[in-house]
Amino acid sequence: MGKEITSRSEDYAQWYIDLVKKADLAENSEVRGCMVIKPYGYSIWEKMQQALDKMFKDTGHTNAYFPLFVPKSMFEAEEKNAEGFAKECAIVTHYRLKNDPNNKGKLTVDPDAKLEEELVVRPTSEAIIWSTYKKWIQSYRDLPLLINQWANVVRWEMRTRLFLRTAEFLWQEGHTAHASAKEAIEETERMLGVYAEFAETFMAMPVIKGRKSEGERFPGAVDTYCIEAMMQDGKALQAGTSHFLGQNFADAFNVQFTNKEGKLEKVWGTSWGVSTRLMGALIMAHSDDDGLVLPPKLAPIHVVIVPIFKTTEELDRISEQANKIAEALRKQGYSVKFDNRDTHKPGFKFAEYELKGVPVRIAIGPRDLENKTAEVARRDTKTKQVMALDEIATAIPALLDEIQTNIYQKALAFRTSMITPVDSYADFKKVLDEKGGFVSAHWDGTTETEAAIKDETKATIRCIPMDAKEEAGVCVYSGKPSTKRVLFARAY
Amino acid sequence: MGKEITSRSEDYAQWYIDLVKKADLAENSEVRGCMVIKPYGYSIWEKMQQALDKMFKDTGHTNAYFPLFVPKSMFEAEEKNAEGFAKECAIVTHYRLKNDPNNKGKLTVDPDAKLEEELVVRPTSEAIIWSTYKKWIQSYRDLPLLINQWANVVRWEMRTRLFLRTAEFLWQEGHTAHASAKEAIEETERMLGVYAEFAETFMAMPVIKGRKSEGERFPGAVDTYCIEAMMQDGKALQAGTSHFLGQNFADAFNVQFTNKEGKLEKVWGTSWGVSTRLMGALIMAHSDDDGLVLPPKLAPIHVVIVPIFKTTEELDRISEQANKIAEALRKQGYSVKFDNRDTHKPGFKFAEYELKGVPVRIAIGPRDLENKTAEVARRDTKTKQVMALDEIATAIPALLDEIQTNIYQKALAFRTSMITPVDSYADFKKVLDEKGGFVSAHWDGTTETEAAIKDETKATIRCIPMDAKEEAGVCVYSGKPSTKRVLFARAY
Repeated sequence: MGKEITSRSEDYAQWYIDLVKKADLAENSEVRGCMVIKPYGYSIWEKMQQALDKMFKDTGHTNAYFPLFVPKSMFEAEEKNAEGFAKECAIVTHYRLKNDPNNKGKLTVDPDAKLEEELVVRPTSEAIIWSTYKKWIQSYRDLPLLINQWANVVRWEMRTRLFLRTAEFLWQEGHTAHASAKEAIEETERMLGVYAEFAETFMAMPVIKGRKSEGERFPGAVDTYCIEAMMQDGKALQAGTSHFLGQNFADAFNVQFTNKEGKLEKVWGTSWGVSTRLMGALIMAHSDDDGLVLPPKLAPIHVVIVPIFKTTEELDRISEQANKIAEALRKQGYSVKFDNRDTHKPGFKFAEYELKGVPVRIAIGPRDLENKTAEVARRDTKTKQVMALDEIATAIPALLDEIQTNIYQKALAFRTSMITPVDSYADFKKVLDEKGGFVSAHWDGTTETEAAIKDETKATIRCIPMDAKEEAGVCVYSGKPSTKRVLFARAY
Repeated sequence: MGKEITSRSEDYAQWYIDLVKKADLAENSEVRGCMVIKPYGYSIWEKMQQALDKMFKDTGHTNAYFPLFVPKSMFEAEEKNAEGFAKECAIVTHYRLKNDPNNKGKLTVDPDAKLEEELVVRPTSEAIIWSTYKKWIQSYRDLPLLINQWANVVRWEMRTRLFLRTAEFLWQEGHTAHASAKEAIEETERMLGVYAEFAETFMAMPVIKGRKSEGERFPGAVDTYCIEAMMQDGKALQAGTSHFLGQNFADAFNVQFTNKEGKLEKVWGTSWGVSTRLMGALIMAHSDDDGLVLPPKLAPIHVVIVPIFKTTEELDRISEQANKIAEALRKQGYSVKFDNRDTHKPGFKFAEYELKGVPVRIAIGPRDLENKTAEVARRDTKTKQVMALDEIATAIPALLDEIQTNIYQKALAFRTSMITPVDSYADFKKVLDEKGGFVSAHWDGTTETEAAIKDETKATIRCIPMDAKEEAGVCVYSGKPSTKRVLFARAY
């Protein structure tokens, strides 16, 4: 194929980049830090979007669209948010180019077209949205306000990696407003649940639901919840966050409502988001040295049929069977590709669809026609079985379900094996260096200890799991008392 | 309701703005020229997107995503495109804000974070996409390349109007590459056909397919095709464009392919787009002084059921019937709202759903229950009929189809009445001033005449219709010979 990828054992980071590029998922553009999402990659993202969008709507949210630009002064309104985000952003200062008088054919920024107030290309939309909510919310009858936005955002990242960290990325951001802290916290937890369900059901990727420590919290949030996943190289990946904003943005933008008793109260808020970073998580959670392994629920092509033929007469006879199978599967809602190209050999095609992660491959040759069978290969286990032609259309749906479950179970078994409880700092460092994964350890709850550990080991607190048991212990670093274990890891 | 809108006869422009705001479609943001698309407006846009996206995929296109930013130098590569677009754009010059040392709590642009090359927020993506296609296209086997992008774009407009002309807007832009001029022209025409079909079938808005004159052509295109619609005030609106780019962008970005004979050739291109401007067209094509009139195929809510009750016992009995009807319709794929609020009177609700353009309203009161009937009102004709409760679920789908057809036919009859052939410049001006609409007139084919007419009358050539008859005549302005009539109009 001329599309070989570095093996994971040789260089995991290079394996990832090779895979993203060679499976036609994305590539770097000529704009620093910005990626091009290629058609095959985008079609996976579309499947993610569709599933998430339905889950958002099923939980009562509607979509809307807010401006790309945020006036500088709006960032100043919410101090913590400004500290956290407004610094490393794309800043629009002018609104016109003109022909360069000194350089024919070239353009230059027109100094006469300087903006009175600079515009920040949104790194997130709390500020612009809450400044709008102020106009939309007067009474308790206007609450809750449950809105989501699908959009592009820009954060000026110095070191970028396709999907995982790019200057521009695509995401959804939910922004909700509520009459009480209780309702807002329920919403924050509900959306964390939606993310976890999406990750596990669609991405086949087990996640741990938890809270961030203060040091890892979203700037402007009172509490940040997250789902954390484990990649094959033992590094953690934050796959989604849901923030309880308290009344911080209501304070910053003076958003109040009249309650049922006719009194003015400040509004409570949440925000929650997942991004094209999920593409990176999906790739790193399941794929192998031969290419992508896609869970069927997110695969753009569920089944590929490859004919094995020498003559066009053979191809014709195979095509007849292949089209029958394809049609029967398409009627059940599956995406089927029949690759009848005569410019490439079957072996080339097999490798190509393995690279692209197509869950099921059906090969049909003249011998198969005689026996009324076909060879059915699974991408996840790389096992093959011979199936009767007239059983295929009913067997494939069950097989795809089995693949979806198997991919999840494999990832779950791995993730489970990668949570290691430790009770000393020596063990903590040893596990991080020799095994990786999540280290489950007692922590004294201070930002100082967290920072010291990060400084010495590059591990951060990924989350305080929602289901962490109350358990008396002492902090592995400071020896001070602790009541529950938290999960540390090196992370993407 | 407190939501009265100016009547069309009083002030058409104000009627439009009132309607957009009061029907909760969109509003101006605090960012100059940028709008907020509110949930109800966005849900109509989503319906448009879904229908168009399916049509694009059915014609072989896939979606992808390219960067928001275009380096200044890329604009310089395609001279005409730069002339046409790069001037009035949002220009990113810096990538960081910092705390203002002279002004506590304020942020200022960090002069140390000046970009070496300025970035233009895309006004359209030909440049960035063709610079990418250069890497994707080597051989005739890589062609045709049929890609679409859903994205936001920014053009620094001085005078903006919600949906019709905003600095930031949402759109789709198709960008295709072909091995021959013939194929590229076929694609340009195919997509024009898709747009026309969408406008007529979904938006119930008749359009005229045609070519732009040289003066109205897209900068960088060899030929621009368009669909033109007629608004109720007699002004035309360009609803979509499809461009044959020739080899202009292949030239600018040096995109070549090896043909079947092994020789290098330059690639041929097309681009085509429609935007949130279609929302403006939809509103102005059909709506009336009471609010929106939505064609059922784009209505977020197809049917609203309003109970007429005094006691909760009555409401309970009505709810039972309403829920039955709602369920039966939802099973058939229709969106039904049962508005059982006890905080608002039926009359208020009636006005609200008229404002929002819900195609069918069903009212059920205690009298109706006795008679086993309901009152069914159409938004388009404002007529009412009494229907048997057990017939409603089967009658409504046919009624919605009838409404869709009626809205189209009404708009078509109006559009037909608004095409006036004229043979003298005096008549030309008279028709424009007294009647408006399209003026069908002979034109000598020169940019000078077109410019002079525009200067004197504000009318432009909307298009040279695809189906224009060959007909000898003389230009209404210059008296020079002409072979076909073109359509002039004042336009949005």
